[in-house]
Amino acid sequence: MSDAPRVIAPGMVVGILGGGQLGRMLATAAAELGLACHVYCPDPRSPAFAVAAARTIAPYDDPEALAAFAASVDVVTYEFENVPVETAEALAARVPLAPGARSLAVAQDRLFEKELMAGLGIATAAHAEVSRQADIYSALARTGRPAILKTRRLGYDGKGQATVRAGDDPVSAWRVIGEAPAILEALVSFEREVSVILARGRDGEVRAFDVTENVHDAGILDTSTVPARIEPELAAEALAIATRIAEALDHVGILAVEMFLATGHEGRRLLVNEIAPRVHNSGHWTQDACLVSQFEQHIRAICGWPLGDPSRHSDAVMVNLIGDAVADWPALAAEPGARLHLYGKSEARPGRKMGHVNRVRPRPGT
Amino acid sequence: MSDAPRVIAPGMVVGILGGGQLGRMLATAAAELGLACHVYCPDPRSPAFAVAAARTIAPYDDPEALAAFAASVDVVTYEFENVPVETAEALAARVPLAPGARSLAVAQDRLFEKELMAGLGIATAAHAEVSRQADIYSALARTGRPAILKTRRLGYDGKGQATVRAGDDPVSAWRVIGEAPAILEALVSFEREVSVILARGRDGEVRAFDVTENVHDAGILDTSTVPARIEPELAAEALAIATRIAEALDHVGILAVEMFLATGHEGRRLLVNEIAPRVHNSGHWTQDACLVSQFEQHIRAICGWPLGDPSRHSDAVMVNLIGDAVADWPALAAEPGARLHLYGKSEARPGRKMGHVNRVRPRPGT
Repeated sequence: MSDAPRVIAPGMVVGILGGGQLGRMLATAAAELGLACHVYCPDPRSPAFAVAAARTIAPYDDPEALAAFAASVDVVTYEFENVPVETAEALAARVPLAPGARSLAVAQDRLFEKELMAGLGIATAAHAEVSRQADIYSALARTGRPAILKTRRLGYDGKGQATVRAGDDPVSAWRVIGEAPAILEALVSFEREVSVILARGRDGEVRAFDVTENVHDAGILDTSTVPARIEPELAAEALAIATRIAEALDHVGILAVEMFLATGHEGRRLLVNEIAPRVHNSGHWTQDACLVSQFEQHIRAICGWPLGDPSRHSDAVMVNLIGDAVADWPALAAEPGARLHLYGKSEARPGRKMGHVNRVRPRPGT
Repeated sequence: MSDAPRVIAPGMVVGILGGGQLGRMLATAAAELGLACHVYCPDPRSPAFAVAAARTIAPYDDPEALAAFAASVDVVTYEFENVPVETAEALAARVPLAPGARSLAVAQDRLFEKELMAGLGIATAAHAEVSRQADIYSALARTGRPAILKTRRLGYDGKGQATVRAGDDPVSAWRVIGEAPAILEALVSFEREVSVILARGRDGEVRAFDVTENVHDAGILDTSTVPARIEPELAAEALAIATRIAEALDHVGILAVEMFLATGHEGRRLLVNEIAPRVHNSGHWTQDACLVSQFEQHIRAICGWPLGDPSRHSDAVMVNLIGDAVADWPALAAEPGARLHLYGKSEARPGRKMGHVNRVRPRPGT
């Protein structure tokens, strides 16, 4: 049913799997368009529930809850790519699912991701599959050191990763990641990290936001800045790469593509790091620097609406508020040119994304 | 309790009386700041329920429901000024209410409104009280014809009004408005209508959005445009007038002041038409032309937060989608530079506000 051509009109219901901050911001964006949201999440304290017209609290593998959810919505999307395949299949059999199964399958597995890039002739870091402990040595021979061992599945925000440096015992890294199927990647020397956030509509139209420059801290996104400090030709190449990936996946919705602007003996070049078939933290600046945010754009795409105008009226720096950093909210609320976004999470645990702030400066007139 | 100094922090609960589109947009703005909303409305199909963390469906005069509501929230505000006085008093005895009782009392009664302006030396249209049928003749002697008979209370969007033109029997007008206590106002010749949307914080700080130019059709707002086509001195005077009113009311929250730029034998001058102690339709353009919208600004004010930056990064024209006009949503969704806002109302009755569109154009750089 994922190719169903019906437009999801105002008054219809968007189902969202996952009740975190991304689901929350999707839900408010959908509400602005007159759509109702039904959020499905196992956690009763999910931030998205507070802005949803309907809520299901149930495990992702509960067939009855999934069937009832599917029957109550007109389209299903998700805020995280680690939706179990069985869950996606159970829903897709009953109701349109967007982005579709292929986007999910590739984004869930770092090896599939790398294979897709190879098939499209898109450069990535040198890498090799590690299925069992003995594979590590041959993999290291291919990547050199330092390298990063990453679980193929279920990694995010730096979790499920271990670095192998000169002198390290690679078997320790294998143990750190839980001896799970993995890939080993060469640690890339890079000048900067960038991402492309684009939307692809049901009709294949692609609209991209401006390339964003990202800085991570301890594996977690810290800041995103537009404009990115890269040459126009590289920005155009980044957009072209992301568009090719979206088309290869027959993707519908927002697609985020993270890249390194790598340096080294092959010169400065873009390497794709990873993709996310969903709204993405590095696109949060679009909320306050564009007329149409990534959240609205995603809803438009999955509902079969025309895509909105992704052009940018302002320069912006997005700063994540992680853990205790959210305690600064009174100062941030008072800061001119800063727009505060808080997720309504009760407990500020270390490493937990509690909110973000967009520092915005209108662009010189054109 | 309305002077309670406690800041309403993220995670606390904002109570909203009224579940229409204004309550809905207040609720999403509050959610962006990490606040939860509890919406109280008698109508089970209230648009604001779809984005509220908690809902009470009960009449406004249900003491038990009001007590339970008050016990569940940290501050109460409202989306309409016709909150019954008893309701407001019952809540204010238990929890901070903002804007406060004085703003409500004045905004609920056209005569009190006019008396406030007179006391502040602020010009209004010539007018006279009409408490019984016989008053109409002396009132007409004061206003001349044409004049408009308006019920003192419970009028909105042109309801509760009747015009008395040359040759009309004024008693017919008295019957049209239901023989309710009223005022008769001279029909003002005006060059244009403008409004000021300002916020006043708990600490008395006032921040105003740019003056807006409004066009009404059949008593209902049709378009709002910024910048308004008035001279800077008149714009400054409009802001000063609105500020004086807010201060006289010790107002906390958004205050809207509608004015005529009148023409006639006394020259071009501003006359205050009416005030609203709440977010206002003529401020909807702030959602897409400012970093902080009137909705967020209202939440900041009533929660004791610092007010946000009301400066405008774009020019804008807001067009209301009334009744069947909402059927144009597919074309509006495809229009570059237009941002669509739909209220999630199921039935497009004539005269019903179904949504609005903000047509936005970034300002030349400064």
